Amino acid sequence: MAEQPIRYEFIKECKQTGARLGKVHTPHGSFETPVFMPVGTLATVKTMSPEELKAMDAGIILSNTYHLWLRPGQDIVKEAGGLHKFMNWDRAILTDSGGFQVFSLSKFRNIEEEGVHFRNHLNGDKLFLSPEKAMEIQNALGSDIMMAFDECPPYPAEYDYMKRSVERTSRWAERCLNAHNRQDEQGLFGIVQGGEYEDLRTQSAKDLISLDFPGYAIGGLSVGEPKDVMNRVLEFTTPLLPKDKPRYLMGVGSPDALIDGAIRGVDMFDCVLPTRIARNGTVFTAEGRLNMKNAKFERDFRPIDEECDCYTCKNYTRAYIRHLIRCNETFGLRLTTYHNLHFLLHLMEQVRQAIREDRLGDFREEFFERYGYNKPNAKSF
Amino acid sequence: MAEQPIRYEFIKECKQTGARLGKVHTPHGSFETPVFMPVGTLATVKTMSPEELKAMDAGIILSNTYHLWLRPGQDIVKEAGGLHKFMNWDRAILTDSGGFQVFSLSKFRNIEEEGVHFRNHLNGDKLFLSPEKAMEIQNALGSDIMMAFDECPPYPAEYDYMKRSVERTSRWAERCLNAHNRQDEQGLFGIVQGGEYEDLRTQSAKDLISLDFPGYAIGGLSVGEPKDVMNRVLEFTTPLLPKDKPRYLMGVGSPDALIDGAIRGVDMFDCVLPTRIARNGTVFTAEGRLNMKNAKFERDFRPIDEECDCYTCKNYTRAYIRHLIRCNETFGLRLTTYHNLHFLLHLMEQVRQAIREDRLGDFREEFFERYGYNKPNAKSF
Repeated sequence: MAEQPIRYEFIKECKQTGARLGKVHTPHGSFETPVFMPVGTLATVKTMSPEELKAMDAGIILSNTYHLWLRPGQDIVKEAGGLHKFMNWDRAILTDSGGFQVFSLSKFRNIEEEGVHFRNHLNGDKLFLSPEKAMEIQNALGSDIMMAFDECPPYPAEYDYMKRSVERTSRWAERCLNAHNRQDEQGLFGIVQGGEYEDLRTQSAKDLISLDFPGYAIGGLSVGEPKDVMNRVLEFTTPLLPKDKPRYLMGVGSPDALIDGAIRGVDMFDCVLPTRIARNGTVFTAEGRLNMKNAKFERDFRPIDEECDCYTCKNYTRAYIRHLIRCNETFGLRLTTYHNLHFLLHLMEQVRQAIREDRLGDFREEFFERYGYNKPNAKSF
Repeated sequence: MAEQPIRYEFIKECKQTGARLGKVHTPHGSFETPVFMPVGTLATVKTMSPEELKAMDAGIILSNTYHLWLRPGQDIVKEAGGLHKFMNWDRAILTDSGGFQVFSLSKFRNIEEEGVHFRNHLNGDKLFLSPEKAMEIQNALGSDIMMAFDECPPYPAEYDYMKRSVERTSRWAERCLNAHNRQDEQGLFGIVQGGEYEDLRTQSAKDLISLDFPGYAIGGLSVGEPKDVMNRVLEFTTPLLPKDKPRYLMGVGSPDALIDGAIRGVDMFDCVLPTRIARNGTVFTAEGRLNMKNAKFERDFRPIDEECDCYTCKNYTRAYIRHLIRCNETFGLRLTTYHNLHFLLHLMEQVRQAIREDRLGDFREEFFERYGYNKPNAKSF
């Protein structure tokens, strides 16, 4: 079998917590893990240029198969030379399978063994997405890491429903593997489902591992369940997964969940959180979040975070950012987005450094204390 | 008298057309003329960063006194250390006086000798702007070049009305000069008015020249009059102005008007045109304008303009830009804005080079032919 395009290099485990330090090698460069992946839904990380993402050391970004399928369409991206060329990004790209959007965006859907019938959320057209179609689209996009087409049930979900869904997702995973026709250029990850049920998670993991994917995602989390449920599921799921393959927790991006996920053996994370809240003026700081629209910043000429060395904090004040956001000036969104992405990417570098020093547990305590997570009814980002 | 903060250095005249090549020296650097000034209404050139403006060699930008007076307010900008610091731009800044916005934005206004009573276009509050207030605000902003507070009558305007307006604007100009209290740091330009009436233009110029401003703007053009009226007014107005002072034609930015203005002795131009049309997907090319939303670009993998070496044209295709604009992705607006500003700034460099080579007339013909200006009912940009 040709050499796998995606390879995980395990470096070390944090003696204090068991968190993993590693590296993922892809046809478009390598990146250290645990890693946070900025989301570029429509072949652009909203408001950011590729150069800005590189300046903050983003080694991999995520793009959405469902959205790119609808606009501009995978054949146009393929004709352009693939997603990397189309969007002028020469580092790694992960594409999801579209499964999550089918279940989260579309009001009318009908799940069959063959695939899912549903409505285009933009114009109501009838659409059909299947394992084969999801592979065809992602093979056309040319991402480095592809995701298997799965069902992502809501939380909570009845046990019996979840059981049938896991079984179907495992069958779909096999069909994905068979339909994936660029196996030497693109690595396909399986997605472990099973909700909060340990036996179903175990079954799902077992099915997928038997298909020997180059990496495994943990799906069906961060869909509304409490933090302790997510942590518990991670605690009995990641140990099931091979040590020599990357583990990717989908849709998680709050600072606490990133640290707690890493502690529970997760290597890769993605989320729209930093970019989405930035567009509302909300920013991360070492001492918790702030909303730049707040009147108290009107004459605050300090940077967002005095310890941050990102472009935004080195050059602009809270007063100026507040002015731009209140006037709906695009540059304001660029500044808050830049800062938030840099904050999470830098947080992951601190996590990796703490793993190197076998002290991720201590780092967690320091970070949680300062960020305000230990305060009563602290919010999760 | 302290050395003037704004100084014009005449370099040469184009033997073919009489257009002027020069340099303007300011406390925040020098720039060659004829020059185009990107507009940064609310202390930001929409979607652009200061670094991007510098990368395309913008030596001076314009910001709006009226808008900054309302948001965030000149005292906040002053407290921030002035407009340059507030917006992280260390090259030259010109601020207008707010006069144009009073007459173009506000529905209810009452012009008196003292100043103008009108309504805040955002919340309807009653406001009053006078020569003294316009100086106070611009002195607080700390721009390099300030504009006198004037009345900008609409086009067309009755002769008698225009005559009274010119006389009042001249009286206001004197009051501006007296109220300007940072004369060694900021240069104040007078604004020649008088509509299409040669004698009134002559009177206005004479009044202002007697006050010995460091530069003169030609106002009351590009307010809806036909191109030939603008050209005719320039032809009898610029010769009235001192050769050793810069001449600034306000609110002009279409390629033809820039070239024709330079040929008629204008040194400085500003306009929202390139940034405004960019946000609608319209872009300049050497062969006329294109709208990136057009379906014919769906699979067009060429740059906007194959001869353009801007960031956008070196890295992105029409198909990708169309995709971004159709999906309302901010990065698409950044790319079209970057290209349009670079196009006009580069056009002015070509104009300056043609003046150096005494062939601006030939350049005009070549440019107009290729751009499509010679076609029947060609549009003006």
